[in-house]
Amino acid sequence: MPRTGRRPGPNTTRGHILDVARRQFALAGFDATSLRAIAAESGVDPGVVMHFFGSKNGLFQAAVGWPFDPGPFTAQIAEDGPDGVAARLARAFLAVWDEPTTRAPLLAVFRSAMTQEAAALLLREFLVRQIFARIAGLVDGPHADLRANLAAAHLIGVAVLRYVLRVEPIASADIEALVAHLTPSLTGYLDNRPTPP
Amino acid sequence: MPRTGRRPGPNTTRGHILDVARRQFALAGFDATSLRAIAAESGVDPGVVMHFFGSKNGLFQAAVGWPFDPGPFTAQIAEDGPDGVAARLARAFLAVWDEPTTRAPLLAVFRSAMTQEAAALLLREFLVRQIFARIAGLVDGPHADLRANLAAAHLIGVAVLRYVLRVEPIASADIEALVAHLTPSLTGYLDNRPTPP
Repeated sequence: MPRTGRRPGPNTTRGHILDVARRQFALAGFDATSLRAIAAESGVDPGVVMHFFGSKNGLFQAAVGWPFDPGPFTAQIAEDGPDGVAARLARAFLAVWDEPTTRAPLLAVFRSAMTQEAAALLLREFLVRQIFARIAGLVDGPHADLRANLAAAHLIGVAVLRYVLRVEPIASADIEALVAHLTPSLTGYLDNRPTPP
Repeated sequence: MPRTGRRPGPNTTRGHILDVARRQFALAGFDATSLRAIAAESGVDPGVVMHFFGSKNGLFQAAVGWPFDPGPFTAQIAEDGPDGVAARLARAFLAVWDEPTTRAPLLAVFRSAMTQEAAALLLREFLVRQIFARIAGLVDGPHADLRANLAAAHLIGVAVLRYVLRVEPIASADIEALVAHLTPSLTGYLDNRPTPP
C-alpha cells in the first residue's frame, strides 16, 4: 500500500493496533482472534505488537483499557483453595475499586460499556474470558457459571452504588465491614459444598 | 419579565418545568424542594405543575425519567410482611427490567447517571427517597440501611450483567431460576430474624 504522508510514530502505531484489536476481539471473541491477524490488519509485523503489548493477553487488556493484569488478581483469590474464597474475592474487588489509580480507568471502562454497544461487547468478552471463567473454575456443583455470574453481579452492583451513585451508607462503609456483609452471600454462590456437620 | 417571542406551548412549558425540577431536586434534595419553588422558578402557577404532574412525587418521577410509580411497586413487595419479601423483591425487579417498555427508560436513566454527575445526583436522591427507604423499612435489626443498600446493589448488578453486558448464562436465565438463586442472598440482607428452631 503506497504511503502518502509521514510514517506514523510509535504512539500512532500503538493506537492503531489497539483500534484494530478492539474490533477483532469484539467481533470474533478472544479465542478466534490471533495476534498475527491483528498485526496483519494493522500493517505491522507481529514482533511490533509483541514489543508494545508483550502477549495476546496483554494486548486484550490494553484494548479494553483494564488497569491491571487479571491473571495475578484471580490467582491470588484462588491460591488458598475454596475456603475463604468469597472473602478474598470481595476484599480484592473492593481494593482495586477503592484505589484511585485503578478506580478511574475501571469507571471509564464501565461508562463506555454502558453507552456504546461495541465497548459492551468487548468488556463482556474480557470479563467472561479473563475473570469470570477463572472464578467459575473455583465453583463446585451445578450451575457453576450462573452462580459465578451472580457473585460478579453482586460485586458490580456494589461498585455502581458505592463509586458511581455514591449512595450512603454503602459509599462510606469500611471495606472490612462490607467484606463481612458480602461474604455469606458470595459464599452461597461460590461454595456449594454441604455445610460440615 | 418581558417576553420577546411567542408564548411557549404546553410541551415547552412541561420540558422547562422538568429542567428546573431536575436542578432543584438534585441540589436541595426531595424534602427541601417544594412544588411551589419549582413553579416560581419556572415562571408558572403551581396549578400548572399540578396539571402536568399530579403531585410532587409525580414531578420527581418525571424529572428522573423513571417509567413507573415506585409507590405501588414497593407497596406490592411489602404487603404480605417480611415473609417472602426477598423473593417478591427479586421477582418485581426482574419483571420491570424484562418488560421492554420499562427496560428502555430504565436503561436510559442508568446510562445518564453513569456518565453525567448531575444525573447521578438526581438518580441517587430518587432511589434513596422513593425506593431504598421503603425497602429499608421492611428490614429488621442493625445496619438496616446498609443491608438494604446491599440488596439493591445485588439487583442492580444483575441488571448490568443481564441487560447491558448480556453475559451468559445470566442473560438468558429464566426469571424463576434467578429468583430461586437470588432469594437466599437477599433474605440474608432483608431478614435478620433468627431462624426458627
